[in-house]
Amino acid sequence: MAGAVCPGSFDPLTRGHLFVIERCAPRFSELVVLVTVNPSKSGLFDIDERVALITECTSHLPNVRVDRWQGLLVDYLRTHELTTVVKGLRGAVDFEYEMPMATMNRDLADVETYFMLTEPRWAHVSSSLVKEVARLGGDVEAFLPPPVFAALGAKLAQ
Amino acid sequence: MAGAVCPGSFDPLTRGHLFVIERCAPRFSELVVLVTVNPSKSGLFDIDERVALITECTSHLPNVRVDRWQGLLVDYLRTHELTTVVKGLRGAVDFEYEMPMATMNRDLADVETYFMLTEPRWAHVSSSLVKEVARLGGDVEAFLPPPVFAALGAKLAQ
Amino acid sequence: MAGAVCPGSFDPLTRGHLFVIERCAPRFSELVVLVTVNPSKSGLFDIDERVALITECTSHLPNVRVDRWQGLLVDYLRTHELTTVVKGLRGAVDFEYEMPMATMNRDLADVETYFMLTEPRWAHVSSSLVKEVARLGGDVEAFLPPPVFAALGAKLAQ
Amino acid sequence: MAGAVCPGSFDPLTRGHLFVIERCAPRFSELVVLVTVNPSKSGLFDIDERVALITECTSHLPNVRVDRWQGLLVDYLRTHELTTVVKGLRGAVDFEYEMPMATMNRDLADVETYFMLTEPRWAHVSSSLVKEVARLGGDVEAFLPPPVFAALGAKLAQ
Amino acid sequence: MAGAVCPGSFDPLTRGHLFVIERCAPRFSELVVLVTVNPSKSGLFDIDERVALITECTSHLPNVRVDRWQGLLVDYLRTHELTTVVKGLRGAVDFEYEMPMATMNRDLADVETYFMLTEPRWAHVSSSLVKEVARLGGDVEAFLPPPVFAALGAKLAQ
Amino acid sequence: MAGAVCPGSFDPLTRGHLFVIERCAPRFSELVVLVTVNPSKSGLFDIDERVALITECTSHLPNVRVDRWQGLLVDYLRTHELTTVVKGLRGAVDFEYEMPMATMNRDLADVETYFMLTEPRWAHVSSSLVKEVARLGGDVEAFLPPPVFAALGAKLAQ
Repeated sequence: MAGAVCPGSFDPLTRGHLFVIERCAPRFSELVVLVTVNPSKSGLFDIDERVALITECTSHLPNVRVDRWQGLLVDYLRTHELTTVVKGLRGAVDFEYEMPMATMNRDLADVETYFMLTEPRWAHVSSSLVKEVARLGGDVEAFLPPPVFAALGAKLAQ
Repeated sequence: MAGAVCPGSFDPLTRGHLFVIERCAPRFSELVVLVTVNPSKSGLFDIDERVALITECTSHLPNVRVDRWQGLLVDYLRTHELTTVVKGLRGAVDFEYEMPMATMNRDLADVETYFMLTEPRWAHVSSSLVKEVARLGGDVEAFLPPPVFAALGAKLAQ
Repeated sequence: MAGAVCPGSFDPLTRGHLFVIERCAPRFSELVVLVTVNPSKSGLFDIDERVALITECTSHLPNVRVDRWQGLLVDYLRTHELTTVVKGLRGAVDFEYEMPMATMNRDLADVETYFMLTEPRWAHVSSSLVKEVARLGGDVEAFLPPPVFAALGAKLAQ
Repeated sequence: MAGAVCPGSFDPLTRGHLFVIERCAPRFSELVVLVTVNPSKSGLFDIDERVALITECTSHLPNVRVDRWQGLLVDYLRTHELTTVVKGLRGAVDFEYEMPMATMNRDLADVETYFMLTEPRWAHVSSSLVKEVARLGGDVEAFLPPPVFAALGAKLAQ
Repeated sequence: MAGAVCPGSFDPLTRGHLFVIERCAPRFSELVVLVTVNPSKSGLFDIDERVALITECTSHLPNVRVDRWQGLLVDYLRTHELTTVVKGLRGAVDFEYEMPMATMNRDLADVETYFMLTEPRWAHVSSSLVKEVARLGGDVEAFLPPPVFAALGAKLAQ
Repeated sequence: MAGAVCPGSFDPLTRGHLFVIERCAPRFSELVVLVTVNPSKSGLFDIDERVALITECTSHLPNVRVDRWQGLLVDYLRTHELTTVVKGLRGAVDFEYEMPMATMNRDLADVETYFMLTEPRWAHVSSSLVKEVARLGGDVEAFLPPPVFAALGAKLAQ
């Protein structure tokens, strides 16, 4: 059983992300949840905060490790001798967006992407929609793990 | 016959928007055309201008009211004791974009979204495409109600 | 508040269908669940059985009426002085399939189609998938109203 | 200016088909409207009838020729020293359906496919939908060239 | 490293199928290529022939086993103590078609589906398109493993 | 054989673009590769650089001319007495994005758009993905004509 990487911006982690992580983790020797850093985009949460929240929310999953990476995804995999990427999908729009990158990663390195469906009841939940609703005062508790919900409240209260 | 809200940025109102409004209005006790305000995006027309243009273009529809809102859509509906949203769709791309928000609105409040098709001959007409073409000197008279066409000409002449 | 028609083959009614019916019914003066008959396709349940099952499963909804129709949908609406069709959608594939018919119905008569989303957790449930799984011995109890589940079991035991 | 082939089953020719043919014809030295024959599918109109109707409806287009073919499309093109196929598209669903065949035709021969949009107001009109509506007594005159409308009436009266 | 099942009708195996199998096999302890039998559909090749061709074409892959199954996919997995399905996808259309079944399989059993992209140059190649082209005399050698190409030629010569 | 225009931002030209240009060029009397200028978006390469790279990469195609344009596409065509646009498509997402503009161009002028498929092995290659990968140190030589690859290396080394 080899390890795998589940990459994303996780700004912040939603219940949809967590569902995929919980479902994947037992299927691999190790699952690295990798916060990918895009220096040209600033998020609501900084990278340290995102990593801390994922670490807290996955503490019940012994073989999950959380890491960050600013470079090419395939370079992270090569450095850590991994060859598998896992991407959760909410639907066909996500799939069409991810296809070119998954094919590119095969071209760049011996890396394979497994696409997995998220839970249907989280299929409409994205970090950006949750943030937009929360900024306008909507109750997003249902869509976030409790530590993320608390952190989002604190962040928006600033 | 209950009332309904038709939300959008309407920057500016097109014939496609107007088709949906004219088709909906007789089917509800009142139809509120709601200009939703996104403070982080500045449009070509300001909110007052958009509201004034919609008001002028819908003056033949006695049960249409035009309003503006900066908060969560479901909060507007709650405040006005409404439970129905009407969204015009140009095609499957619009539908995929609107699905998460419609599901979210159900989660947040007892709000239902009715999706209606626009007229096929306006299916390629969006506010942003019309503005882009007009800025480059293209004739967009066919795609806009006359008051909007006049206002766009004046705005671009500035 | 006008009446509306929710057409379909309902071979048989699923929880996804029932969700849309329950959600629609209070929004119209009357909701007709209309079993449309295609004489060139024989289903698993005959029309009488489908009508009986829907009637039983919607008995708690006082303004739902169940009917059958072999002709053009718009003729049913004209005969009954109705102008609104409600279609539940599971996703973009359903939408693309329904668009031409909804536009055609506008061309043929003054009929409008409101598209509504089904509940996400039933988005993968169709009558045909449920029948296929049940025929192979899979447990489909979760996807069907109890009377339909019982009837399907009896039917497949024959 | 080379010639081109516009293939299809044309059972029967609709106004959408005719729009694409009229728009294409002046752009090629010759446009062959090719009725492709699938021996395992019987249509409403036989091949002779389809060819006769297209011939009548395109008599105002001097460089349109109507033909029939039961073999591989690329073999027809090779035999007639043509290398261009024109396909009208109603939307993305058509496009996804045609992509594999267009790629296959490139693999099999030096044949290129140009995809052209149909007129938006015919985007919901297909031969099969028109036949289905007409069989149920709906008025489909708007969607068919007059000779086809007459022939369909006669055929269904049998 | 657990085992996985790659199900399909494989009527017949194409180079696209073989690409996915070759790419998957080293990633699992065992990969079962499972010919799923649909008694209501007769194919061009019978089940024995399909199994024999896959067996021959995967003889260089030591951990691939070929099997057949007429029941529910999740029952095969349960019987063999497997929990992973691998499906190759040619594009978004395949994905939308497979989503409901993958979600259903999660509902029915603790089974997860990994979706993997096929090689882009086989993205237009399906068993049915290859058979259609071959029946019309087109050269399909490029799209099939050599034993399948030979068997198809013999079959069509009958 | 009339001339045609193949418009795009080409920031920079990829092998996918070049495939479409090479495939088109022999099919028209002249093919203008037109770098469209969007003054509100600054690219990685400036317009002069893009034009120079395309010119160098298409020097083996005698009837290709490279030009630039800041206005409405249909005005360029009118000025040069052309009526045909050629757009390469990578897939259905591209098609849905291009449909409204192609319909608009028909409304604005007697301009027709031919959509052509790119080569499947370049279907995942876009200028923006190539730039993103190259910025992170990935090897993108396979996706670019040699002069573009060299220029990109020099540009990123600055």
